[in-house]
Amino acid sequence: MVESDAVPKIVARDERRTPQTSGDAVIDEVVASGRDVMRKARVTPADVGAAGCSAPGPLDHMTGVVSQTQNIVGFTNMPIAARVGDGLGVKVFLDRDTCMAAIAESLIGAAKGAKDFVYITVSTGVGGAIVTRGRLVRGASNTAGELGHWPVNFQLDASRDAGDDIPRCKCGSFGCVEAFAAGANLAEQFGAQRAGDVYDAAARGDTRARALVTRAERALANLAVGITNALNPSLIVVGGSITEHQPAHVLDPMRAAIAQRAFRAPAAAVRVVPAALGADVGMHGAVLEARERASGRGDWFL
Amino acid sequence: MVESDAVPKIVARDERRTPQTSGDAVIDEVVASGRDVMRKARVTPADVGAAGCSAPGPLDHMTGVVSQTQNIVGFTNMPIAARVGDGLGVKVFLDRDTCMAAIAESLIGAAKGAKDFVYITVSTGVGGAIVTRGRLVRGASNTAGELGHWPVNFQLDASRDAGDDIPRCKCGSFGCVEAFAAGANLAEQFGAQRAGDVYDAAARGDTRARALVTRAERALANLAVGITNALNPSLIVVGGSITEHQPAHVLDPMRAAIAQRAFRAPAAAVRVVPAALGADVGMHGAVLEARERASGRGDWFL
Repeated sequence: MVESDAVPKIVARDERRTPQTSGDAVIDEVVASGRDVMRKARVTPADVGAAGCSAPGPLDHMTGVVSQTQNIVGFTNMPIAARVGDGLGVKVFLDRDTCMAAIAESLIGAAKGAKDFVYITVSTGVGGAIVTRGRLVRGASNTAGELGHWPVNFQLDASRDAGDDIPRCKCGSFGCVEAFAAGANLAEQFGAQRAGDVYDAAARGDTRARALVTRAERALANLAVGITNALNPSLIVVGGSITEHQPAHVLDPMRAAIAQRAFRAPAAAVRVVPAALGADVGMHGAVLEARERASGRGDWFL
Repeated sequence: MVESDAVPKIVARDERRTPQTSGDAVIDEVVASGRDVMRKARVTPADVGAAGCSAPGPLDHMTGVVSQTQNIVGFTNMPIAARVGDGLGVKVFLDRDTCMAAIAESLIGAAKGAKDFVYITVSTGVGGAIVTRGRLVRGASNTAGELGHWPVNFQLDASRDAGDDIPRCKCGSFGCVEAFAAGANLAEQFGAQRAGDVYDAAARGDTRARALVTRAERALANLAVGITNALNPSLIVVGGSITEHQPAHVLDPMRAAIAQRAFRAPAAAVRVVPAALGADVGMHGAVLEARERASGRGDWFL
C-alpha cells in the first residue's frame, strides 16, 4: 500500500563532491548539504516529517549502518542514519541506493505492478535489488541484492591463480560484474577520465577500447542469463548512467544473451527494460521510502 | 505449518534406468515402477492419498508440466503429473528435484528453522532452490532457482566468441556452473565413465584431471560468492553425490571463497553445510510435498 503514486516534486537541490579524506568529513558534508537544501526550500527541521538517505552498500536499512563500501572513504560500520539525523535534527531513513531505486521504479516507474522483478544499475558501479512475490529480498542480515558482485569469470588456466588476469574489483574480489562493466572500472582500465571516452574510442575502432567494451558486454550478458535462470523475473529494469548513454552496449547484449542462452520458459517470461526515472531515481526513492516508513507503511520493502 | 517433522519411512523402493528412446517411454517406465512399488508395499491406488514426483527442470509445479530438460530424452512441454497420475490412478504432485530437496532439508534436514537459505546440489547436474523470508522463490512462471545455469565464465579474448574454449552446457548455453562442476560434465570432459575417476586421477597427480577439478572448484567458488552477495542467506545447504564423495572439492572451495571474496556482512551471516538427507532426499521431499499439498498446507513452498 502506498499513499500516492505521484512522482515526488523536487523543490530544491544541492549537489556536492564527496570528500576523499574521511568518513566524518563525508557525514559533515552531507549534513551541510541537507541544511543548505532546507534553507533553499525555506523549511526548518520541525517542518520535515522524515528524510531519506541513499548510500552505496552493503548496509542494514533497519539499523541505518553502512557495513563497508569501496567507493566512499571511511564508511566502515558507519551509523549514517543516526549521524545525519542528529546533524540535521530530523528523522533519517537509510537504505542502499539500489533498493531505493527499485522502490521508486516499483511505485512510480518502469516496474509498476510487477511482483517479480530485478533492478540493475550500470553506472559508476554495478548494483541491484531483487523483488519476489511483491517483496524486496533482504536476506539474513539485510544486505541481499548486491548483484554487481556476482563473479562472472575466473582464470581457466589451472596453473595460475583463479584471479590472475581477471579484473580485480574494488570490493576485494575479482571477476565481479562490476569489475568488468562499471563506468569507473572501464575508465580506469582504459586510462581515461570517463567511461564515455572508452565507448567513444571503441566506436572509432580503437582495439583496446573495443576489447574492454566487449568484456563489459559479456559480463552483463552472463548476469542477465543468470538472473533469468535463477530468479525467473517478469522484468529486469536497468538504470544507471552507462545504461542511459550506451543502451546498445547494455540492454542489447542482455536481451540477446537471454534469447540465445537462458532456459526457454524464464526467457519467455522476462522483458529487459530501461529504468523510467533517470538520474533522480535515488532522490525519488529516498523520498518515497522515507514517507512510507515514517507513516508505518512500506512493509513490502522492509 | 507441517503435520509432522518426522523423517518419512520408506517401506518399498524400485529403481530403474531412465529410457533413452522417448519421453513416452520414460513416462511408461515411471508408471510401471510406481505400480511395482505399490505391489511391493501391498497397497492399491485407492490406498494412496497422494504421490510426489520429482523431476529435473525447468518445470511448473502448479501445472505439473516439464518445460524442457537436457538430461531426459523427450521431456519438452511434458505434462508429467497428469500422465503419471492417469497411469497410476493416484493424484500426483510434480516439482523440480531441487525444490523437493530444499523442502525436505527445510522440514527434516540441515535447514530446519532457516528462513533465508539456498539449497545447491552438485551431482550429475548442478541445481538449486532459493528460500527467502521462509518462502520458496518461484518467480514469474515457477522456474526460479536454476542456479546451476548461472554463467560463471566467458572468453576474455574479444577477438573470439564469448563461448570459445568455455565448456558448453547441455542446456545450450556456455560457462554455466553445471558445465564445469557437474559430475556428468567432468566425466565427459576427461573421457571417463564416472566423475569419481576424474577425482581419483587428480589425486594421483594427473595434470589434465587436476585442471578439470580446479576449474570445477573455481566455478563453485564463484557460485558461492555470488549467492552470498546477491541473496545473503544464513545457510547454503549443499547436497548431491559429488558433494557427498568429494566434500574437500565442493564445500571447502565454497567456504574459502566466501571468506576471501564475499562482502564481510553477508559472509559473516552465512554457513556452508552439507545436506543432511543423502541420496534419499528426493524421495523424502516428494513424500513431504505430496502430503502437504494434498492436505492444503505447504503455502510456503508453492
